[in-house]
Amino acid sequence: MVVQLPHDLDPDFRAEIVQREKDYSQDLQRRGVWRHLWRVVGEYANYSVLDVESNDELHKVLSGLPLLPYLKITVIPLATHPSDIAAGA
Amino acid sequence: MVVQLPHDLDPDFRAEIVQREKDYSQDLQRRGVWRHLWRVVGEYANYSVLDVESNDELHKVLSGLPLLPYLKITVIPLATHPSDIAAGA
Amino acid sequence: MVVQLPHDLDPDFRAEIVQREKDYSQDLQRRGVWRHLWRVVGEYANYSVLDVESNDELHKVLSGLPLLPYLKITVIPLATHPSDIAAGA
Amino acid sequence: MVVQLPHDLDPDFRAEIVQREKDYSQDLQRRGVWRHLWRVVGEYANYSVLDVESNDELHKVLSGLPLLPYLKITVIPLATHPSDIAAGA
Amino acid sequence: MVVQLPHDLDPDFRAEIVQREKDYSQDLQRRGVWRHLWRVVGEYANYSVLDVESNDELHKVLSGLPLLPYLKITVIPLATHPSDIAAGA
Amino acid sequence: MVVQLPHDLDPDFRAEIVQREKDYSQDLQRRGVWRHLWRVVGEYANYSVLDVESNDELHKVLSGLPLLPYLKITVIPLATHPSDIAAGA
Amino acid sequence: MVVQLPHDLDPDFRAEIVQREKDYSQDLQRRGVWRHLWRVVGEYANYSVLDVESNDELHKVLSGLPLLPYLKITVIPLATHPSDIAAGA
Amino acid sequence: MVVQLPHDLDPDFRAEIVQREKDYSQDLQRRGVWRHLWRVVGEYANYSVLDVESNDELHKVLSGLPLLPYLKITVIPLATHPSDIAAGA
Amino acid sequence: MVVQLPHDLDPDFRAEIVQREKDYSQDLQRRGVWRHLWRVVGEYANYSVLDVESNDELHKVLSGLPLLPYLKITVIPLATHPSDIAAGA
Amino acid sequence: MVVQLPHDLDPDFRAEIVQREKDYSQDLQRRGVWRHLWRVVGEYANYSVLDVESNDELHKVLSGLPLLPYLKITVIPLATHPSDIAAGA
Repeated sequence: MVVQLPHDLDPDFRAEIVQREKDYSQDLQRRGVWRHLWRVVGEYANYSVLDVESNDELHKVLSGLPLLPYLKITVIPLATHPSDIAAGA
Repeated sequence: MVVQLPHDLDPDFRAEIVQREKDYSQDLQRRGVWRHLWRVVGEYANYSVLDVESNDELHKVLSGLPLLPYLKITVIPLATHPSDIAAGA
Repeated sequence: MVVQLPHDLDPDFRAEIVQREKDYSQDLQRRGVWRHLWRVVGEYANYSVLDVESNDELHKVLSGLPLLPYLKITVIPLATHPSDIAAGA
Repeated sequence: MVVQLPHDLDPDFRAEIVQREKDYSQDLQRRGVWRHLWRVVGEYANYSVLDVESNDELHKVLSGLPLLPYLKITVIPLATHPSDIAAGA
Repeated sequence: MVVQLPHDLDPDFRAEIVQREKDYSQDLQRRGVWRHLWRVVGEYANYSVLDVESNDELHKVLSGLPLLPYLKITVIPLATHPSDIAAGA
Repeated sequence: MVVQLPHDLDPDFRAEIVQREKDYSQDLQRRGVWRHLWRVVGEYANYSVLDVESNDELHKVLSGLPLLPYLKITVIPLATHPSDIAAGA
Repeated sequence: MVVQLPHDLDPDFRAEIVQREKDYSQDLQRRGVWRHLWRVVGEYANYSVLDVESNDELHKVLSGLPLLPYLKITVIPLATHPSDIAAGA
Repeated sequence: MVVQLPHDLDPDFRAEIVQREKDYSQDLQRRGVWRHLWRVVGEYANYSVLDVESNDELHKVLSGLPLLPYLKITVIPLATHPSDIAAGA
Repeated sequence: MVVQLPHDLDPDFRAEIVQREKDYSQDLQRRGVWRHLWRVVGEYANYSVLDVESNDELHKVLSGLPLLPYLKITVIPLATHPSDIAAGA
Repeated sequence: MVVQLPHDLDPDFRAEIVQREKDYSQDLQRRGVWRHLWRVVGEYANYSVLDVESNDELHKVLSGLPLLPYLKITVIPLATHPSDIAAGA
């Protein structure tokens, strides 16, 4: 996810929307849906790993992001790796 | 990491090198260095998260990959995300 | 899926592998997994829609493709569109 | 089709134009022209399959899209695949 | 269409296949299918305009090109332009 | 040529400039300079073939386009193809 | 780092923010963190080498750049080269 | 150099800045620094060859361009070609 | 022009073909057709300016290059720049 | 500089050429020409800073690299940055 906030966004609106994004993300983290979240160094962007039942659920989760209108999201479908010891390999 | 094995690689050599790659990866997973490992669906590629002390250590770890001559590796530096609850946010 | 067969592939092997790919695909079509299949005009490539339970199942299905070593596959995750009448919209 | 609506679009105009787009699309779906419609997960974009008599008809259909000024459309010409069982292969 | 002939192609085979490509193209030109044909200056490539009934016919025509295994073809669907006087505008 | 008209262009100005573009193009078509003109299906863009004496003349012709400030033009130099029967091949 | 200042930025604000960027950079240079700094010829951009303890520290340093909202930063992780005599090779 | 002037630039300011760019360029041409200057056909862009003592001088010369805020400049370092007869080859 | 000679080219053939390329280029330079020739620093590539009567002549000249099978040529059509003092501006 | 050594390179030749590259680089480092040298983490590539009198000298230096036939070099011209304290800013 790459965040592209306009320079002239109202500071109060910006602060509010960023806080709502944080709350939304942390709620999903607590529920085990948003499994990992990292900041890309030097960029207003993140790599995230979400664990969902289906593409429809994933789209619903992403569509609820408060920052959605300012996000460029690329979804990369991942599967279990045959050498992953956490998956019992 | 994208794996590009030549079509005409000797099958025995291929099997051996792939096994050595698996062993190498799993040893690093057990030591907590190779933290996450996922297969990219439909591709002979993976997304991995490694946790190291320095760039020099990371290069050393990656240089030891048995499949190295056949890998195209792109390193994306990640940092703690301010909303990551696992990091105490 | 883009097919890249080497020019010097043995003609018999080529014919056999292409036939096996066709059989594999048609079996999946009959089972409702491989839902759509189109040729890209002028290219040895196709656009396909597969309907699976999970990313793991999708990777398993794609990994079984007889032409796999010669394929460049890009997976685009699709979801139900809110205007799709076939989905009851 | 990728939709790029300006952030400052009037909400009423936006709601109206999105509704008209939905009506336009569903009318074409009912007439068998707009054969398939999927949402790209995480993006305000879709993959669609249209079945038309000619390039001129396709351009006419696409030119009528209410969201046209905000769409980036890429047309990929598709043909019957020799392994498609739905086409009698 | 971009032509990519291997350097080590047998000269006789190369001459024969290039001649067959020329014959094939000129036959289609005479039948009014291959409407225009230009060389891209400095490249072993061409821009061509073909006039066909359907995508299936176009794929059939292109699949018959003797140089097909060595061609990279990109099809751009064109329609009548509203300002084209040749189309009665 | 790709046309990129701003969304907020005054409708009267837009209508006028598009009409002037059409007149300009058709005058050049009648004079045999603008030899071919096609619409790219689904895009506000065209492929055109112009027949001029020199690069300087071509730049002069293109610089006169009423839509010039809103055009992205890419010129691909074409030559006679050795298999073109219209050129006596 | 590529700097992209809007054309209509208030000149006083621009002068102030550029001065603060210079001060910030020179303070880090004096502390040995910002090791090298070069201008890319003909561009409002620079190549910089920073020496930090961790990705988290690097992100913190870069996040403090006064020009941050106008910067496009790409971080390339570098390690000691085995032929570098400055590193004792 | 690619010139990207905003559509809504004040016409007088635009005329003045373009004239100053022309004067600046011609002065450098007369002094033998700006050795060659060509228009890219169909684009508001040019290819230029400058002959300078150092990268620092080149950056100083380019930084003085009146159109600088509206230019995208890419510098390609060139050297004497071993087959160039003008260089005594 | 980018030169891509295979690593395993016979050294004598390579020397001969490079010499023939040099002779061919210098003959065209003496005849005023190949007006400028520069080496791209660090690459086996050049930027060249050719002055010809037509696209057909340019393609003929380029087609005669002894290194042609190993060249990737991109032709950028250039015109007189309105600020070029050498063109009487 | 990106190094692309063929998989089937003779091991002795490979060892010898890599050693000669190291010697060549270190000699230039000692003479102050090759000012900086870093390994890109995870890649057989480096970022280097060379300090030369002219483009001709730089091309000569790079042309002498023993690994040249296997290198992809991109030269980015750098100048003194106005905020660089090492340059007296």
